[in-house]
Amino acid sequence: MFGVILAGGSGTRFWPKSREQSPKQLLRIIGQNTMIQNTVERLLPLIPAENIFMVTHALHAFETCRQTEGFGISPSQLLAEPVGKNTAAAVGFAAKILHEKNPDAVMAVFPADHVIKDPKAFCDILGRAEKIAEKGYLVTLGIQPTRPEEGYGYIKQGRTLEGSKGAFEVERFVEKPDAMTAQKFIAEGGYSWNCGVFLWKVATILEEIQTHLPKLYAALPSIVAHTIENNRKYDYRLLDSEGEKIYDSLPFISIDNGILEKSKRVAVIPATIQWNDVGAWDALEDVAEKDAEGNVFTENVTPLDCTGSIIQGEGRMIGAVGLKDIIVVDTPDALLVCDKNQAQKVKLLVNKLKEKHRPEVKLGVTVQKPWGSYTGLEEKDHYLVKRIEVNSGERLSLQSHNHRSEHWTVVSGSALVDLDDKQITLKENESLFIPLKSKHRLANPHETPLILIEVQMGDKVVEEDIIRYQDDYNRC
Amino acid sequence: MFGVILAGGSGTRFWPKSREQSPKQLLRIIGQNTMIQNTVERLLPLIPAENIFMVTHALHAFETCRQTEGFGISPSQLLAEPVGKNTAAAVGFAAKILHEKNPDAVMAVFPADHVIKDPKAFCDILGRAEKIAEKGYLVTLGIQPTRPEEGYGYIKQGRTLEGSKGAFEVERFVEKPDAMTAQKFIAEGGYSWNCGVFLWKVATILEEIQTHLPKLYAALPSIVAHTIENNRKYDYRLLDSEGEKIYDSLPFISIDNGILEKSKRVAVIPATIQWNDVGAWDALEDVAEKDAEGNVFTENVTPLDCTGSIIQGEGRMIGAVGLKDIIVVDTPDALLVCDKNQAQKVKLLVNKLKEKHRPEVKLGVTVQKPWGSYTGLEEKDHYLVKRIEVNSGERLSLQSHNHRSEHWTVVSGSALVDLDDKQITLKENESLFIPLKSKHRLANPHETPLILIEVQMGDKVVEEDIIRYQDDYNRC
Repeated sequence: MFGVILAGGSGTRFWPKSREQSPKQLLRIIGQNTMIQNTVERLLPLIPAENIFMVTHALHAFETCRQTEGFGISPSQLLAEPVGKNTAAAVGFAAKILHEKNPDAVMAVFPADHVIKDPKAFCDILGRAEKIAEKGYLVTLGIQPTRPEEGYGYIKQGRTLEGSKGAFEVERFVEKPDAMTAQKFIAEGGYSWNCGVFLWKVATILEEIQTHLPKLYAALPSIVAHTIENNRKYDYRLLDSEGEKIYDSLPFISIDNGILEKSKRVAVIPATIQWNDVGAWDALEDVAEKDAEGNVFTENVTPLDCTGSIIQGEGRMIGAVGLKDIIVVDTPDALLVCDKNQAQKVKLLVNKLKEKHRPEVKLGVTVQKPWGSYTGLEEKDHYLVKRIEVNSGERLSLQSHNHRSEHWTVVSGSALVDLDDKQITLKENESLFIPLKSKHRLANPHETPLILIEVQMGDKVVEEDIIRYQDDYNRC
Repeated sequence: MFGVILAGGSGTRFWPKSREQSPKQLLRIIGQNTMIQNTVERLLPLIPAENIFMVTHALHAFETCRQTEGFGISPSQLLAEPVGKNTAAAVGFAAKILHEKNPDAVMAVFPADHVIKDPKAFCDILGRAEKIAEKGYLVTLGIQPTRPEEGYGYIKQGRTLEGSKGAFEVERFVEKPDAMTAQKFIAEGGYSWNCGVFLWKVATILEEIQTHLPKLYAALPSIVAHTIENNRKYDYRLLDSEGEKIYDSLPFISIDNGILEKSKRVAVIPATIQWNDVGAWDALEDVAEKDAEGNVFTENVTPLDCTGSIIQGEGRMIGAVGLKDIIVVDTPDALLVCDKNQAQKVKLLVNKLKEKHRPEVKLGVTVQKPWGSYTGLEEKDHYLVKRIEVNSGERLSLQSHNHRSEHWTVVSGSALVDLDDKQITLKENESLFIPLKSKHRLANPHETPLILIEVQMGDKVVEEDIIRYQDDYNRC
């Protein structure tokens, strides 16, 4: 069996912890691991790492590779979309790639950013679903509803599948019903929540795409033909510029709307597992540990008479007084304070910020790079202070700047610096001046991480002021 | 007439904007000026700058001088208390100093951190009060109550003062009555709020101190004898170590409890001016501009469906969703989120933080120094990044460090640096390394401010690691 993790979420509802560059699946929302790491780990008892594929936006490809390589997933198992086209395109892309490996294999599709409390029970159900999928069904996993939730899609089960106890034909799908309807569903029985987990044979889903989404189907061979391997270290699969154009022309539609609601061979296996799609900040009270007053607080919070509140900080001290049902999410450059019952509106807030072209929508102060990361410490008109971390064995591009010079001070580790025609070793507690327009390159050839403080100065201090002469990550 | 501004507030209820080092009177709570600047400005039409004295804790003396020198107040008009002993000691100290200048002059006492909406009406009343004070009365200014406020002290007026229309004998003082009692006072009439503004002749108040607080009275001559001028630029008056001991032994009591409630010659002038003691964050909705939904927001707030809320930021982006009656105060190192109706509890929160020895109680990231300020940008175990601003014409002490070296990069202005036996001019975009244990001094001899980024590195990176050899501000 293959696993395909759809990691295309843009995660606006988890702003300001999520940004365009770091959506929910790449964040530690609960526990020590990120959402996608939890998703991978959950599958490993059932699906070997080399069979787990991921589809993500190209913007998130490096970071997704880095987060999953520790589980034995090779970057070549990551398919990078140049643009998000909803789940039908992602499923089609993955199915076409897997078709070359084994058209008769079952392919299980998973969202990258859900919480499932009992991974063992989950794998048991997947095993059962695999058998139904082998018979040529599109199998959906249904979660037994525990409340009349309006925000979910519902699956109405029909007759029992012949010879398959516990599996049913699907009578119909209902997208986000209103409160009354949802209540009726619960009372009536026979409805499950659609949790976005699907199993089917590779060949089956491609046939269905051919029938119901012919335009997508027709594009798949060229998309695969224009898929290239990227670079030295993180050679995930991405599209060349021709492939990008084709991908951009694909219909924007979900696999649910495009296929499942139309196909005649859809089955559902209702399951009673604890599942949460962690759709917004208020979900934390269902998936995280609460204190005696029903609060979910990070360590840096000093509360006084608070109940039912969610406060997520990142080290800064937070004093909370008399809060009831309030969400606070604190990051170095942006803060959210929100009524808990209006957590869904964070998406609208982010739209408002987008209209204002606020940079806090795109990036946080820490920006992940293929070689490590940088963190903005202070930004003014004519200078910028950054902490730069270069991972072991990595190096930045050979580059120069037309508008700024730089001052580097190593605070941890040791750097190897190319500066015009010189090569310089820069040790802890040593500084170096990088003049305007000089060709330079920063590398960490050692096993310990390299950390340096950089002061950039010039008439224009912007990321875009960079000329790359050589780059290990093909960014020239 | 002399003015004496009591600026001893520690301002815990305005945490995290106020800290031990920067209490409310030194902050811009509303408008462009700080509270003490507003207080000084309000008095200038009536009292010449050279007659305005201030009493403050030594910790706040430099900054108080700096904030008030632009109004023509000389640092020698500032009396620095080594320890806060409530208002009786501060009034006694000031009265004894003024006694040498003119024992028969009227001395008017003002809190440093209240808001008064109509300064002209205020000065008119002060003029009337001065005349009563000249007759030997202790005159209190009473504010006509507009609501049954429990948090204030009340003054019950008695008979009209003979020959002084609009002025009354005081029948009694009532400290913070309960809600029922306050309501009764309002219904009954003849009560005013005690706003902490008092006028009396210097000789009169000293006589009253002699009668009611003989211990304080006895100490005053030695306190004045042990008062010294401090230093080159900000030669405010402070106590020598002997004087500190004496001051520390003074009774801790307010002028209200110690004198006014006991004296037989107290008068009150009820006034209908718009006054607010700005006692806690919720006061902002009375003294600041509100939007149509009753919110008081700084510019960096993006709100969605908020009402009656107060959000005060300092540049970081704040998204607010669905808030009702919530206070948010955001600073670079600490955040407060508080129910508006529980704003008084911020004091309790700060006590809790004190018990935990949290540094955020004492200092913010920007620390005022006599020569300028520094701002912490990043602090880790073994290094610290700071922005240092040196005011024109100022210089730091000649110093060395036993545990750290420093890397300086000038980002604005130009520095003159002593480094061991060399003198170095460090211009914008230039860097310098200050080795461990080297004797060094940073000066800004130019008219433009000097700004530099400092990276401190060493086995111990703490403010206390400093040996001072010479200092313009007597801190050796």
